Amino acid sequence: MSNPIRVAILGYGNLGRGVELAIRQNPDLQLVAFFTRRDPATLRTLTPQVPVYSIDQVLAMKDDVDVMILCGGSATDLPLQSPEYAKYFNIVDSFDTHAKIPEHFKACDQSAQQGGKVALISAGWDPGMFSLQRLLGNCILPQGSDYTFWGKGVSQGHSDAIRRLEGVQDAKQYTVPVPEALARVRSGENPVLTTREKHTRECYVVAKPGADLARIENEIKTMPNYFADYDTSVTFISQEEMQRDHSGIPHGGFVMRSGVTGVDGETKQMIEYSLKLGSNPEFTASVLVCCARAVYRMNQSGMTGAKTIFDVAPAYFSPKSGEELRKELL
Amino acid sequence: MSNPIRVAILGYGNLGRGVELAIRQNPDLQLVAFFTRRDPATLRTLTPQVPVYSIDQVLAMKDDVDVMILCGGSATDLPLQSPEYAKYFNIVDSFDTHAKIPEHFKACDQSAQQGGKVALISAGWDPGMFSLQRLLGNCILPQGSDYTFWGKGVSQGHSDAIRRLEGVQDAKQYTVPVPEALARVRSGENPVLTTREKHTRECYVVAKPGADLARIENEIKTMPNYFADYDTSVTFISQEEMQRDHSGIPHGGFVMRSGVTGVDGETKQMIEYSLKLGSNPEFTASVLVCCARAVYRMNQSGMTGAKTIFDVAPAYFSPKSGEELRKELL
Repeated sequence: MSNPIRVAILGYGNLGRGVELAIRQNPDLQLVAFFTRRDPATLRTLTPQVPVYSIDQVLAMKDDVDVMILCGGSATDLPLQSPEYAKYFNIVDSFDTHAKIPEHFKACDQSAQQGGKVALISAGWDPGMFSLQRLLGNCILPQGSDYTFWGKGVSQGHSDAIRRLEGVQDAKQYTVPVPEALARVRSGENPVLTTREKHTRECYVVAKPGADLARIENEIKTMPNYFADYDTSVTFISQEEMQRDHSGIPHGGFVMRSGVTGVDGETKQMIEYSLKLGSNPEFTASVLVCCARAVYRMNQSGMTGAKTIFDVAPAYFSPKSGEELRKELL
Repeated sequence: MSNPIRVAILGYGNLGRGVELAIRQNPDLQLVAFFTRRDPATLRTLTPQVPVYSIDQVLAMKDDVDVMILCGGSATDLPLQSPEYAKYFNIVDSFDTHAKIPEHFKACDQSAQQGGKVALISAGWDPGMFSLQRLLGNCILPQGSDYTFWGKGVSQGHSDAIRRLEGVQDAKQYTVPVPEALARVRSGENPVLTTREKHTRECYVVAKPGADLARIENEIKTMPNYFADYDTSVTFISQEEMQRDHSGIPHGGFVMRSGVTGVDGETKQMIEYSLKLGSNPEFTASVLVCCARAVYRMNQSGMTGAKTIFDVAPAYFSPKSGEELRKELL
C-alpha cells in the first residue's frame, strides 16, 4: 500500500491495546501515534517504535492523523473527548451509555460538521454489530419480535459491584443466557420473557481472610438492579483459582428476530446472529478498526457529521474495491 | 402515511406472490400494479383490487411507479429485464447466477445511470443477507476463514434435475448441512472441508408405475455436478406423501466467520449468522421489499446507478428516522 490510512489511539487500556493489535491485521492502516493522559514515558505499548504523546500535544498532530480511535470509557471520558476531538479529526468511539446516545450524537455531530470531519459513535458489537442485526431483522420481518441475549461473558460493571462489597478481595461475574429461553425463541414460539427467565448470573468471589461468606453471598444476591432480579449463583474460590480459571475476558451473545410472513402470518421465519468471543475488548477493537477505515473513506467522499453503524454502507468497511467485493463475497 | 412509496411487481410466481404479501406488512409501501407476460385477464392475484397489466404496457406507467420489483428468474428473465427496466424505473432484482454478476451489474449500471435511477441487483438472502454477513466478517476478522452452509432446504434446481429422469413422476431434494462439519467450524478448528463433508442431499422421489427404482436411484446418485460429489439418499414415496409431507419450500443456512485476534492469533473469535426459513420465496420477497424502500430513498437523495447490498447504508432499509433508529435499535 502506498498511502496507508494513518490511525492514532487515544487511551491505552484493554481496548486501546486491542486496537493496536487489530491494526496489525490490516495492511492498509498504519498506527502512527498513541495519546495518553498519563506521563508518556511510563506507557509500555506492544509497538515501541510508534511514538507516545501526551494528550496535550494532540492538536499538533492534526495533519498527521487520518482517524483517531477513542478508547476511553463511556462514563466520563467519551462524553467530553468525542465532541472535542471530532472538531479536528475523523473519530471512532464505542460510546455505550444507551440513554445518552441521542445527546452524544448531537454533540459529536455539531463538532464534526464544524470541523468537516466524520464522527462514528457507538461502534463495537453492542451497540454496533448487534444493533445492525436488530435493524436488519426489523426491516426484513416487520411482523416479529426481537430478542437479544448476552453471554456467556464477563460483565465488568457487575464484577466491580461485587468488588466494592466489604470482605471481597476479587470477583468476576459472568452473564449467562438461559438455554431454555434460547430454545423457546428458536422454536418460533415468540415468548414474553422476564429478566429472570433470560439470563442467570454466575459470580466467582475471592473473600478476604476471615470475611463472613454468608453475608457476602446475601449482599450479592439481593443487590438491587445488579442481581436481585436474577437467579444468581455465588462461588467462593481462591486467588490462585481466580488467576488460573478466570483471567480471560470472554463474551458474546445472540440477536434473534422471530417473525412471520404469508397470507395470515402462517409462515415462521427466524434470523439468528451470534458471537462467541475469546476476548471482548479485542473483538470490539477489531470492529473499531474497520470502522476507522470506513470513517476515513466516507470523509474522503465528502461526508461530514456524526454517524452510527446504521449510516455506513458496508463496502466502506472493506479495503477491497466494489468490483472485488461483488466477485468474491456477493 | 400520506405519500406511500408506489411499488409494482413484474412476474407473478412464488416470488411475486411473496412480494405481494410482504408489501402488506409495510404501511409506507403501496402495491400499485402487477405486470405479467401472460394474458392479464388470466392472472389470479391475492389482491384483486390492484390492476394487472401486460408487460407491454409497462412504459405507460413510468410516472406512476416508484420502484419495480422484478420477480423473474436469473437464467433468462432478469439478464434482459433488469437492464431494460432500469432505464425507466428504480428496480430491485434477485439475480443469483454468481459468475454473471459482474456482467449483470455493468449492464444495469449503464441503464440506471442513463435513466437517473437506482438498480439494486442480487438482493435476497444468498446473494444478499449472507453476502453482507460474509463482508462484515471479513472486515472485522481479517485473519480467519469463511464458511457458508445451506439448508436444511429445498433446492429447486436439484429437484428439477431428478424430475427429468426417466420414470420419475415427482421429486423434491433437500440440501442438508452435516452437523459434524458445523460443530467443527464452531469449535474454532478452522477445518478444510470437502464438498462431501459439508452437505448431504436427501431426495424424495415419486416413481411412475412400473419404473425401475434401482436404476433411478443409481442415476441420481451418480449424476455429475448435482449429486456425484455428495452423500445422497434416495427415498421413494407416494404422490400423497409428497403432497402431505413435502409441499413447503423451507430453506435456510449458516454463514460463519472463524477468526483470531491477539498478539499472535491466540484469541479465537466466532461470528455466526443463520436463517431458518419456513418459506424461501416469502423470505426472499421480504428482503426485496425492504430493498425497494432503500432504493427509492437512495434515488430521492440523489444516487443513481447499479448497487448491491454492499452499497446500502442500513438506515435506508427502515421506515424510521435516524433519531428513532438510534433511540430504539442502537
